[in-house]
Order: sequence, then C-alpha cells, then structure tokens
Amino acid sequence: MPVPMPVHAYAAPAAGEPLVPTVIERREVGANDVLIEVKYAGICHSDIHTVRGDWGPQSYPLVPGHEIVGLVAEVGSGVTGHQVGDRVGVGCMVNSCGQCTNCRNGDQQYCAEGMVGTYGAVDRDGTITQGGYSTHVVVDADYVLSVPEGVDLAAAAPLLCAGITTYSPLRRWGAGPGKRVAIVGLGGLGHMAVKIAHALGAEVTVLSQSLKKQEDGLRLGADHYFATSDPATFEQLAGSFDLVLNTVSASIDVDAYLGLLAVDGTMVNVGAPGEPLSLNVFSLIGARRSYAGSMIGGIPETQEMLDFCAEHHLGAEIELIGADKINDAYERVLASDVRYRFVIDTATLG
Amino acid sequence: MPVPMPVHAYAAPAAGEPLVPTVIERREVGANDVLIEVKYAGICHSDIHTVRGDWGPQSYPLVPGHEIVGLVAEVGSGVTGHQVGDRVGVGCMVNSCGQCTNCRNGDQQYCAEGMVGTYGAVDRDGTITQGGYSTHVVVDADYVLSVPEGVDLAAAAPLLCAGITTYSPLRRWGAGPGKRVAIVGLGGLGHMAVKIAHALGAEVTVLSQSLKKQEDGLRLGADHYFATSDPATFEQLAGSFDLVLNTVSASIDVDAYLGLLAVDGTMVNVGAPGEPLSLNVFSLIGARRSYAGSMIGGIPETQEMLDFCAEHHLGAEIELIGADKINDAYERVLASDVRYRFVIDTATLG
Repeated sequence: MPVPMPVHAYAAPAAGEPLVPTVIERREVGANDVLIEVKYAGICHSDIHTVRGDWGPQSYPLVPGHEIVGLVAEVGSGVTGHQVGDRVGVGCMVNSCGQCTNCRNGDQQYCAEGMVGTYGAVDRDGTITQGGYSTHVVVDADYVLSVPEGVDLAAAAPLLCAGITTYSPLRRWGAGPGKRVAIVGLGGLGHMAVKIAHALGAEVTVLSQSLKKQEDGLRLGADHYFATSDPATFEQLAGSFDLVLNTVSASIDVDAYLGLLAVDGTMVNVGAPGEPLSLNVFSLIGARRSYAGSMIGGIPETQEMLDFCAEHHLGAEIELIGADKINDAYERVLASDVRYRFVIDTATLG
Repeated sequence: MPVPMPVHAYAAPAAGEPLVPTVIERREVGANDVLIEVKYAGICHSDIHTVRGDWGPQSYPLVPGHEIVGLVAEVGSGVTGHQVGDRVGVGCMVNSCGQCTNCRNGDQQYCAEGMVGTYGAVDRDGTITQGGYSTHVVVDADYVLSVPEGVDLAAAAPLLCAGITTYSPLRRWGAGPGKRVAIVGLGGLGHMAVKIAHALGAEVTVLSQSLKKQEDGLRLGADHYFATSDPATFEQLAGSFDLVLNTVSASIDVDAYLGLLAVDGTMVNVGAPGEPLSLNVFSLIGARRSYAGSMIGGIPETQEMLDFCAEHHLGAEIELIGADKINDAYERVLASDVRYRFVIDTATLG
C-alpha cells in the first residue's frame, strides 16, 4: 500500500450534516501496528451524538465507528499476537498511556492520562483518530482483539462496544446462577445484556418501557419481562434483584429503580443522562444498596468477552446495511427503530 | 422485681420539650428475655432528632438511648447465652421477624417486616419500646450482645451504634492493609471509624471541615488529615481512595467526593440528609465507582465488632455525665461541642 495510504470511508463533513463518502489517509504500519481490512462496522448510538457535536465540538471531517471487525492485512515487524488473515476486532479505544496503574491493571479505559478513543480523539502522536466506517484501519496491536470462530463476523462487530459494555458489569457484579438480574432497556446494549446474562446463568428480567418487544426479549434469553410504564411493576418487583443493569441513558427515577434491589444489590449505569440525577440516600442505606457506573471494559476483559461469546455462539441481532443507508440508519436509531444493531458492510464504502 | 417493674428513666414528655426524670414500667422477664441493669447509655445524635420529632411524630413520653451497656440481672428460663453478672450491650434494635431472608442471613437491621428499634418503635407485641436512658431494660436474648473484657464498659456503650455503624461498612468494603480509606467527618461516628479503620490496617485519611481536630485525628489513628473547606483538598486527593466513608448527614457535593475515589472505589454513606442529593452519573462511570449506603449492622456482625474492639482495646472517646446534664449535652451535640460521645452514668438516673 502507498504510505500514507488513502482509504475509502464515510465521514461527517461538519456537525449536523449527513455523512458522505470520502477518502482519508491511514498511517504507515509501524513496528507494533496492525493493518486491518475492515469487513463490518456497527453503528452505535454514540456515533450519532458525537458526529452531530452533541457531546462537544469535534474535528471534521470525522469518520465514526468503534465496533470494528475485519481481517488482518499486514502486521508490523514487532507484532507477534496477530497474523495476516486473522479475524480481529477493534472497540472504543486504540491507545492509552500503558504506564499508569489502571493501564497496568488492564483497565485501559480508565487510563490516568485518558484513553484514546477510536475516532475523534487526539492520539498520542497528536493526530486525530478516525473510526471504522472505512475499508482499512491501522491500530496498535495492543488494542487489537482476536475474534474467534464460533460467532459470525458481522454479528460480532457490536460486541466490541455493546458486548463489552454489558459483559464487564455483568461479570464484575456477579451475574450467574442463582442471581436475579434486571436489564433496563432492550436496545443495542440491552439485547446483548440479556443474551450474556442468560449465558452466564442468571435469572434475567427485562424492564422495558412497554411490552412491545416482549417476544424478542424472551427469545433472546429473558425469563421475565415487565413494562416500566406500569407503576405496578415497581411494587411487584420491589426488593427483587441482586443486580439492575441500566442500559438507558435517559433520566430515570433512580430511587424507584434502587427500590427494586434486594439487600446488598447494585444498580449499574452504563450510560448517563446529560443532566444530574436526584438521589435519596435512604434508598441506598435502607438495604445496603449500591449505585455504580461502568464504562466499556479493558483490553484483557474485551478479549475474555469475545472468547465467551464465541464459546456460547452469541452475536448481536443485526440489520446489515450498505453505506448508502448510513444516514437513514441514524434516523432509525434515534427513533428506536432497530432490532437491534445496524452493521455496515464495508464492501459498499468504496 | 415486681411485675411489671417500675424503673427510673429520663424521658421527653413531648416533642421539643427537655427530658425529665420519670418512672416507666418494664415487662416481665419472659422465657427468652434478659433483664439488664443498665450501667451506661451513650447519647447518639439520632436520639435528639427522634425525641424532638424531627423524623416524624412519636409516642410520648419517650425514653431514648440505643447505646446501652450493663450487667445481666436476670435471665428467662430459655436463655443459654447470657448469665447473671455478664457484661452485655444492646444497640439500635431489640426485635425483628427472625424469619425473612435478611433475618436468617443475620441482617436483622434489614428485616423485611422492619426491625424493631430500641426506642419509639412498635414492638411485635404491640407495645412501644423505651430506650436506654433508664436503670433497667428487658430485651429478647437474641438481641443482647456480650461485651468482652478488654474494653472499658462506659467507653463500650457508643460501640453499640457508632461502632457497628462504621465497622460494618469498613469490613464489607475491605478496609485493611494496602487500602486507602477516607473518613468524612470526625464526630461520634467518625472518630470510631478512624480507630477501627486504623486497627484494621488501612491507611486512614480524615476529611473534616477544618483542621481544628487534626491533632485528635492523628492521635486516634489517622495517617493524614485534610480540610474540606479548602478546595485544593479535592484537587490534591483526586482519585486517591479505595473507600470513602461519609459519616456526615448534611448535604454534600456528591460528585466532588466521588472524584476522590480511585477506579473501583466506593463511597458509603452511613447517614443521609433529609433532602435528595444531586448526582452526575459520569462521576460513577468514569472510574467504575460505586455509591453505597449502610445502616448499623446485624446481630452477628455487632458481636464480631465488639470482639474486635475488645481485642484491640478500642472504646469511644467519651465524656461521662450525670443525668441532670442530658439536656445540656443535647445542646452541645447539636453545636458539635463534644469529643466525641456523651455517655450517661445511669447510677444518676434515680
């Protein structure tokens, strides 16, 4: 490939504008780098917020995408963990300091100097990262995951964000046999949470606004399904759960959801509303409850998740689209009209 | 003793009125009951709020006091765990259902039917409980703790509330060697938390409004002492602690305190302000932090705490007073003018 190499991509030219086909340049493959031929890229809700500037100003043109799977096309001289032709994935981060306590503990997402996001972030060499809606990406090998056989490659793409974001707290807070786990929201994150919690052996309850997706939820592995729009749900399920995993970023009545936890139960948010929430501390004290937050997962845990999902044949429920449908897909994601993740076939990008 | 037996006590005759000497009646010693000759009773901040009606209407006259130590004077026919003359204590609860999951787990304080508080609560026989500012009390043997030699009896009284309230979360959230623990507030609870966390082997930091009590804090076992009135404290200590134990019931800037936690750190409240707090969920998500609450401890854990404190010769720092000083002591507690717990010598009640 020429250096730096031009590759086809879809980018937002400016905040609020539709994505358009473009050509961007990828860096030369360094000694510890992997060149990946991207096969599929998932569309995450946060792609939309980021490119639209909802979460702060961005550098444009901006190529989103942090649910990336593909095949290794080239490796640097120092790379031992990946070989040409391997199935690999890249998630929400492509670099971190590697030296701080959190990085050394494998929690690169909490790097003391800040993890480098897969797109729209300033990399440690000063360049702006560009994401997975492109035919190729060059990534430091330490941030490249192996995608084992056992899971369809397209269905594996969303595992790199939606999968790890839910797997990590489910594992950390003990979802497993004998545990009663509630998943709040049945969207891109929630549907993976249901599959994973079920595979971990927990008793899984979906708490969704309505019963519209009940059939899906039960098919995906939920044992029970309740509508949160019905106030009786909160009475009936009071004190019922060991873990409530909230995948919804909208504001919620925190005290009402904490009331669903048994003694020693934990509610974990993996998303956050833009404005502060109100919390009555008695909701915690009255049953030694905890309210926690979790953000994706570290590199070792992401690999563990991929291995787990492959072993259990867990992929996302996806709708595969061509690049020309990206902007339509964005509108449908915002309208919650997707079951449950759009994945771009990158063969259509060029 | 006559049945029911009249005993000397100090009671609030009505909400907002000073406590006065009175005589109340204790029930007959049942088969599973213990009659305790009360020697000392601690004054807890919550006594004051309760008798004043701050936390809701009460039945008057009301005898407060849930930090009770004394000697066994008589035991019922079915009591095997306590003998006449034993040093014993009673804390914040004197009954619970005994059948629910929480009770069976030894977490009687979270009894599904509600624990029965030591005073001002409706007992399971329908009577209103009366607390420890009295010469005698009759308590179900299952809620009577042994106070081992190794700790002065008067200094042991506050262990029954302030001790267990801080010991329980310190143990549960792993205060020990290699752990960095911050204690917010150096009052009745906070000073016990410092002693216990130090005895558990943790590195202890006091976060107090000012440096006024710094010398005390270091003497009690703290390794470091910072003033929260100085904004630099929050910058300097950002990400520093594994556990923050907040013993202050006043409203705080939750996000500022959560920012003091390292990855996976937990802040635990053992008190709660009357109004809801504001919480930015990003404070949790950004470092996989937890915000938890804890309320006293169960009976087995309270015994464990007493054994631990006796082994380490840990009592409260107390100011022993006669009954005629109770109302003055209340004013001084409200003015934070006590180092660190008032204890009533019940010999002065009659």
